[in-house]
Amino acid sequence: MAKDVRFVLLGLGNMGRNLLDVLADRHQAVLDEFGLNLILVGAVDSRGAAINPNGLDMASIRDMKLAGQSVSACPGAGRDGMSALEMVQATHFDMLVDASPTDLTDGEPGMSCVRHALGQGAHVIMANKGPLVLAFQELTELAQSKGISLLYSGTVAGGLPTVNIGVRDMAGSHVTRVEGIFNGTTNYILCRMAEEQISYQEALLGAQEAGIAEPDPTLDVDGWDAANKLVIIANSVLQQPTKLDDLSVTGIRGVTLDDFAEAEVRGEVIKLLAIAQETDDGYKLTVEPTSVAKDHPMGQTKRWDMGVVYYTDWMGIISAVIEEKGPVPTSAAVLRDMINAYH
Amino acid sequence: MAKDVRFVLLGLGNMGRNLLDVLADRHQAVLDEFGLNLILVGAVDSRGAAINPNGLDMASIRDMKLAGQSVSACPGAGRDGMSALEMVQATHFDMLVDASPTDLTDGEPGMSCVRHALGQGAHVIMANKGPLVLAFQELTELAQSKGISLLYSGTVAGGLPTVNIGVRDMAGSHVTRVEGIFNGTTNYILCRMAEEQISYQEALLGAQEAGIAEPDPTLDVDGWDAANKLVIIANSVLQQPTKLDDLSVTGIRGVTLDDFAEAEVRGEVIKLLAIAQETDDGYKLTVEPTSVAKDHPMGQTKRWDMGVVYYTDWMGIISAVIEEKGPVPTSAAVLRDMINAYH
Repeated sequence: MAKDVRFVLLGLGNMGRNLLDVLADRHQAVLDEFGLNLILVGAVDSRGAAINPNGLDMASIRDMKLAGQSVSACPGAGRDGMSALEMVQATHFDMLVDASPTDLTDGEPGMSCVRHALGQGAHVIMANKGPLVLAFQELTELAQSKGISLLYSGTVAGGLPTVNIGVRDMAGSHVTRVEGIFNGTTNYILCRMAEEQISYQEALLGAQEAGIAEPDPTLDVDGWDAANKLVIIANSVLQQPTKLDDLSVTGIRGVTLDDFAEAEVRGEVIKLLAIAQETDDGYKLTVEPTSVAKDHPMGQTKRWDMGVVYYTDWMGIISAVIEEKGPVPTSAAVLRDMINAYH
Repeated sequence: MAKDVRFVLLGLGNMGRNLLDVLADRHQAVLDEFGLNLILVGAVDSRGAAINPNGLDMASIRDMKLAGQSVSACPGAGRDGMSALEMVQATHFDMLVDASPTDLTDGEPGMSCVRHALGQGAHVIMANKGPLVLAFQELTELAQSKGISLLYSGTVAGGLPTVNIGVRDMAGSHVTRVEGIFNGTTNYILCRMAEEQISYQEALLGAQEAGIAEPDPTLDVDGWDAANKLVIIANSVLQQPTKLDDLSVTGIRGVTLDDFAEAEVRGEVIKLLAIAQETDDGYKLTVEPTSVAKDHPMGQTKRWDMGVVYYTDWMGIISAVIEEKGPVPTSAAVLRDMINAYH
């Protein structure tokens, strides 16, 4: 017997739209393999919402967004100007998927919707990092008290199951150190600098031309995106209550070809590493350009890669790398969480 | 409130003894972090058993085994000559851990005990591959019908969560190809051949002297250990009902330094890969020495490493590698499963 799972989707930018793409392709497989009938009952973008308790057509909404329309133009279901919270409050659902943009001041519009959903006992799947970075303890405790799932395996290093490996697969062992390449854009830039012997500025421009870096690349190149992800790892895997202020963060703007040349002499290469190192006083958390051996698991990463290394007491050293040539794996990670909330 | 988990342990060879070692160290942490009080109520080796409903002292049993004694010599609890099945039938428990030796003819003594435990509704954690290789469908269906966990994340590539990444983290996406270095001994031998330019025979001897290869290395060097693990991956991750006979298996005895020299010209190196390749007729399953690029995720593995690469439709290419300089991570993986059966 298939189980109907009514879900609402916040945010229809790249990530939300890609999720609809993945779902349009994999809906039947998820039904066959896991017995879950995923039904989109509400969706919202910055201009309005669409609601249909019987299910919105996911492929149509994706196509509307590709055509530059708001979801609120959806025939019969559109609600022009309706906010995310209004949509969430007006809809009955089993699961909320938050793919709205990451905001680090108050986490809105995701934060209020996530609180509302958890309060109602609905599962929550996060692709948006903001609420987790700002209120990890509050949200996880709320989820726990309601006995429901708050999953966010797509928030750290795209589709790489960084969180899952740390939380589930290290269960029972103790993690002494974490090293991660959690931001794809900076790894792309640093790889091009190393491979093509071009300056930071040239490599950044190349990344922008390739659509990999934003016109304003601050969040990536100054290390804040990686830092947000390290905050999530510190809170979840390392269980150390952590805010962004607890981290020391240095970006890659100051990395020069001379730095690469010096590293090369030692058989090393420069990577932007997020590091958690256990000390007598808890884990020390840093994001900074770091020289690592070329045969180190993170030193081996190429321009489309992100990765993580977990050092443990009893379970050896476990590293994982994802090669993703676009943002779709993050949306596939959201689907994985949607399934794992029930399995 | 802590939950008492009464478990029985089959097999007190390296793996079972290492598990007691890990548990002696991590028992309190597991209690604090997961609320599970793991109590060993029965244990058995080839010479007899020990039973105590109030809990056997794990550190003492480890020490007895290190001193060459049978667990049946345990004061007050020992049962000289008692078989594994007799011990399991005589004990009340919530969970069975099977760390008995892998047997591929009838899977005994693990098979009967596992059937009994699942039939009783007890969780089963497998470190022993035999019953899974011989009767995967029967055992997983039995577990499912009882609504309990049959976990075996330590059976494929030591402590690497090969199965977990494939089953849980690929949920919703489709795996098109798997490449694995699932056997540590052969990777050690091939790495030494490549690094030291020594023959297979010399490298094998070195591995035997280092205690890494068995005196009779057949199971490892002829590819059967890797093949067993590929059978488990095919059944679990790929959901293709598979027996050992369905695989094409070639070991590393025939690999020469000339093969490495030829590969070197192409920037490649020889690895014993377990491969599942999707075809129009299901997954084709092979284990064979394969020339791979040195910067391929498996080409980069070093002598203490094992690893896996999952190629997917939507989730990019995910690789994972474990560095383990001894067999303890496999036992730590058993502990992870013991915890995850409840979380």
